[in-house]
This record gives sequence, C-alpha cells and structure tokens, in this order.
Amino acid sequence: MDRALPPVVTLEDVRDAAARLAGTAHRTPVLRSRTLDALTGASIHLKCENLQRVGAFKFRGAYNTASRLTAEQLARGIAAYSSGNHAQAVALAARELGSTAVIVMPADTPRSKMAAVTGYGAEIVTYDRYTGDRVAIGQALAADRGLALIPPYEHPHVIAGQGTAALELVEQAGDLDAFLVPVGGGGLAAGTATAVKGLRAGVRVVGVEPQAGDDTLRSLAAGHRVSIAVPRTIADGQAAETPGELTFSINQRLLDEVVLVSDDEIRAAMRFAFDRLKIVVEPSGATGLAALLAGRLDPVPARVGVIISGGNVDTRRFTELIGDAGPG
Amino acid sequence: MDRALPPVVTLEDVRDAAARLAGTAHRTPVLRSRTLDALTGASIHLKCENLQRVGAFKFRGAYNTASRLTAEQLARGIAAYSSGNHAQAVALAARELGSTAVIVMPADTPRSKMAAVTGYGAEIVTYDRYTGDRVAIGQALAADRGLALIPPYEHPHVIAGQGTAALELVEQAGDLDAFLVPVGGGGLAAGTATAVKGLRAGVRVVGVEPQAGDDTLRSLAAGHRVSIAVPRTIADGQAAETPGELTFSINQRLLDEVVLVSDDEIRAAMRFAFDRLKIVVEPSGATGLAALLAGRLDPVPARVGVIISGGNVDTRRFTELIGDAGPG
Repeated sequence: MDRALPPVVTLEDVRDAAARLAGTAHRTPVLRSRTLDALTGASIHLKCENLQRVGAFKFRGAYNTASRLTAEQLARGIAAYSSGNHAQAVALAARELGSTAVIVMPADTPRSKMAAVTGYGAEIVTYDRYTGDRVAIGQALAADRGLALIPPYEHPHVIAGQGTAALELVEQAGDLDAFLVPVGGGGLAAGTATAVKGLRAGVRVVGVEPQAGDDTLRSLAAGHRVSIAVPRTIADGQAAETPGELTFSINQRLLDEVVLVSDDEIRAAMRFAFDRLKIVVEPSGATGLAALLAGRLDPVPARVGVIISGGNVDTRRFTELIGDAGPG
Repeated sequence: MDRALPPVVTLEDVRDAAARLAGTAHRTPVLRSRTLDALTGASIHLKCENLQRVGAFKFRGAYNTASRLTAEQLARGIAAYSSGNHAQAVALAARELGSTAVIVMPADTPRSKMAAVTGYGAEIVTYDRYTGDRVAIGQALAADRGLALIPPYEHPHVIAGQGTAALELVEQAGDLDAFLVPVGGGGLAAGTATAVKGLRAGVRVVGVEPQAGDDTLRSLAAGHRVSIAVPRTIADGQAAETPGELTFSINQRLLDEVVLVSDDEIRAAMRFAFDRLKIVVEPSGATGLAALLAGRLDPVPARVGVIISGGNVDTRRFTELIGDAGPG
C-alpha cells in the first residue's frame, strides 16, 4: 500500500451517506441483553440491521449510491447482480428514487427472494449459475440498456453507506472499545472500520467469517487477495471466494483481526437471538454474535458493538437450520 | 360505577411507575414497517415489549409493585402464582431488589419455563392444575411464609406499571389516534387506557381478545363480569375465564371497544412479524397486530399504536404453530 495515497473512503464520506439516508433508512434500534452481558462480562450493544428496510444493512449502501446518480441516469434505470439482500436493496432504492431496476439473479433463486425483488417493482433477468458469470452478465446488461450498475461492495459509495450503521451505533451507544462485524465481500467491514476508526483511532475492529469462507482471513495472512474453493456454509451472505479489491485494500489497512465461526456456532447464535433476544437473524447476520458467544473475542473489552447484519431467513429455512433441536 | 369515586389508578401513578422503572426496565424500541403502513393506509407504531426484560411487558408491573415493598418485606420475600410471563417477571424483580421469590406453578409447566424462573434465582412450588386452586395456594403460601404476594393483574401498582409501555410509546412516537392492546386478565389494557386517555381524552383504545377467550367482550356487553368456559386458544396469555374485578372496572370505563381475532389470524400475525418485521412474537403478543392485519380496526385512523406484548415462544412451539406452512 502506498501510504501517500489518501483513503478512498473516509469518515466524512460515511457522514455524508448518513445525511442522505436520514428519513429513508431506518435508524435501527440497538438492543441490550443482561443475559449477554452476564455471559460475556462486558457491555454488549447489538446494532439490529436485521430490522433495517429490506431486512439487511444492504439498503444503506445501495441507496447512498443510487441517490448520487443524475436525473438522467435515474431515468434510464439501475442494474445489479445478486441472489441475496443486495438485490432487494437496489430494487427498493430504485423505487424510492423514482427509478427502475433490473436485477440479474440465478435461475434457481428461491421464489420468495424473487417475489421480494419484483414486489419492489424491479425486473429480474435470470442466468444459469453453473455456466454464467454474473458480473459479466450484469455489466453487459448495463451497457446494453444504458443502466447504472451498482455493485454489491466494490464501490466507495456502497462502502460509505454500509459504514453508517456503525456510525449510528456509536451515536446511540457512545464510545465502544471493539466492534464485531461480519465479513463477506468486505463492504460492511470496510465501512464499519472506516467510520469507527475515523472517530477514534484506538478502537478494535474484528471481522468475522464462517470457517469455510475464510477468504479474507487467508488473504490478510498472505498479504494479498487469495481465492478459496466455493465455500460450503449456512452463511450464504458470506460465501465469497475472494475479497473485493477495494474492500480488501481498506480492510487490510483497518481491520485488527479476522476470526472464524463454525456453522454450529452460527446456529447457536441464531437460536440465542430467537430465544433470548426475540429477534430473527439470518446465518450471515449472526456471525458477530456467534463469535462473541463462542469466545473468539478474548479478552472481551468492556464495551463491545456487534453488527447484526440481516434477518432474511424464511420460516422453513429457519426450521431446517435450528427448529429440530428446540427445547421441550 | 360510582362516578364520585376517584380512579384507583391515574396517569400520575403510571408516571410514577415509569420513574421507578427507569434504568431497570428496557425502554423498548418502537418499530415501523413501510409494508405495514402500506397495507393499512396508516402510520403504525409497534411497541416491542417482546424485547422487554423477561420477554414481556409483565416485568413492568411486577417491578413497580415489588419496588414499593418495605425493606422488611423484601427481606422476607415475594410470592406469585403464574405459569407464564408473570412468573419470570416476579422472579427477576425480586432478584433486582435483592429479595427472593417463590413462584406457584402447575406441575406440568414446560421445563423451559421452570428453568427460566429458577434461572432468576426463584424457588418453585408446584401444584396439580386439575385439582388445585392457584390463587388459594398462593395466598396460603404467602401467609405461611410471610411473603408479599404480587398478583398478575389485580393490583393498582401492577396496572400502573403495565401502563408505562404505552406512556413510553407516546413519548417515542408522538400523539397517536388509537391503540390496539391485548386483553387477558386486563392489566395491560387497563394500564394502557389509563395512561393514554390521561394524556389525551379523545384517543381510542381498542382491546383485542382471542375468539375463544372473549370474557372481557362478553362482560362489557353484559355490563358486569361474566365467566366463560376455559378458553381453547393458542394465545395462552389470554386464556382468562373472567376479567379481573379491578381491571374490569377500569376497562369498562375506559376501553372504547374490544375486538376478536381467530387463532389462524394470530398465526398469520406471528408469521408476518417473523418474515417482515424480523421479530419473535408469542401468540398473545401478536393479537394486536392480528387485529390490524385482519381489518378489525375499521376505519384505521391515521396514527395507530400497537402493543406487541411478549415474545416467549420457544423454537419448537413456534415451529408447531407456523413452521409447516412456510413459503418455499
């Protein structure tokens, strides 16, 4: 890294994103749990982005980016590729801004996820996930139709938008000593680290990956981006094979550490969230909490923020994941 | 009703309870949902008492009452009878105040509920629900051991405590035109109506009962308390056979209306809460939302508050109730 280059995303960018999101994104609640505090011996602050619009933090980055398009660009429309929360986020952001969206999704995407996207008024273009390259298809579609493509994480405005969740958390909870943040493509982690280290340099930012999806951990160890086999994990939002170029450059500079959690630890965290916190958290959304419950933060500093990043898991999938082992 | 008598519980009592609860009870978040607003054509404000300590509003009334006991009474201990959320609420209130609690519970209470009570350090005394009278057993136990008995709803301090949820909701959301509140024994409804009509006389307060547990609706129609057969409903927190004497006297004066919801409508509301709001709501806690979704408030005024009263449903029971009909 050339230390002479200024950062691509700064705290000011995150603050600017927050101003754009005000009144459109939810200012999501921060939950406290005495049980969790007692278990960890610390003061834990859970930023509930599962309660965000579209059920995930992704709306922040998508809307921040879309809101900066020109009137002409908005009139032509927006494109995105995603089978997950980014798809809904872009669809809703486009609708909020009076634009239209075309989302490239694998043909075998669950109907419920497709319905959520079309429910926000977006068009879906499908492709075969085994033979198609979603990035190439998305870029070709955008070029053909003159659409503005919003990538899921490789964009400064997306990263700045994702950072607004942590910025809000600090406003709501006061200074915190450490943050646990899920790492998939790396946009949420990069935005979080940019925001909270911009506010206070000494704060610790710990990324969390599923064991099978440890591409960022391995890349940090190698000192450059490496690719892993397609991860097999229940944390579908973190099944990246390699970190983003831009997000990795930020995370390499700002993350203190990346820790791993197993699928069983993620299930236990989802169950804890349901039973004790009374909130619905999807597997990827639960990895920060899983790391905390599994003792990956050792020692646990006095005041910890955890980004609960999403809640999009339907009742059938939820039951498959943790329903059978329920208490009597 | 003798109109010359002053009310047993007033807005000032609710305000006083709120001051006692500050810093001990959670100031629970108020959730908004654009989907819900669009479905109803109104602005809906959900007061999430499922996110309260012990997972239900019951902690408010129990703590408010227990906090008024003398040091001598606290040293001797507290008693309660309940198989539900009031049991945990009294157990926790006692612990918070450095006292002890003895809870009278049916011998066939699910282990998980007993474990929650003993987890807060309380002692459990069991009885046979088919042959025993829990009120008589509780009173005898309290007399024998010199314990202060905290009833689940028939007490002014309990009612005032329950009213603090609605008081907070108005502080958080501003003036509302109508409130939907679940009615079981009637303490939450009485406290809510006392608080919000004390603040503004013209506000509409609508109680919600499960169809099979319509004792308050029938009692209001009859002009006096009537008893019904033991209700068969999934809303176990609202399976009262007859309203409380004190709570009914308040609800008769202050409730504008009571509406009914079916068990299927309650299930639909629990599913909506899981899928769209990402929160866990127990059957009784979902009846206000169920009434809204089922169109029982007609017309829906511009700004509506709904008390989501509790979230204590374990994953197995949740799956039994709504897991099978999940979307693919």
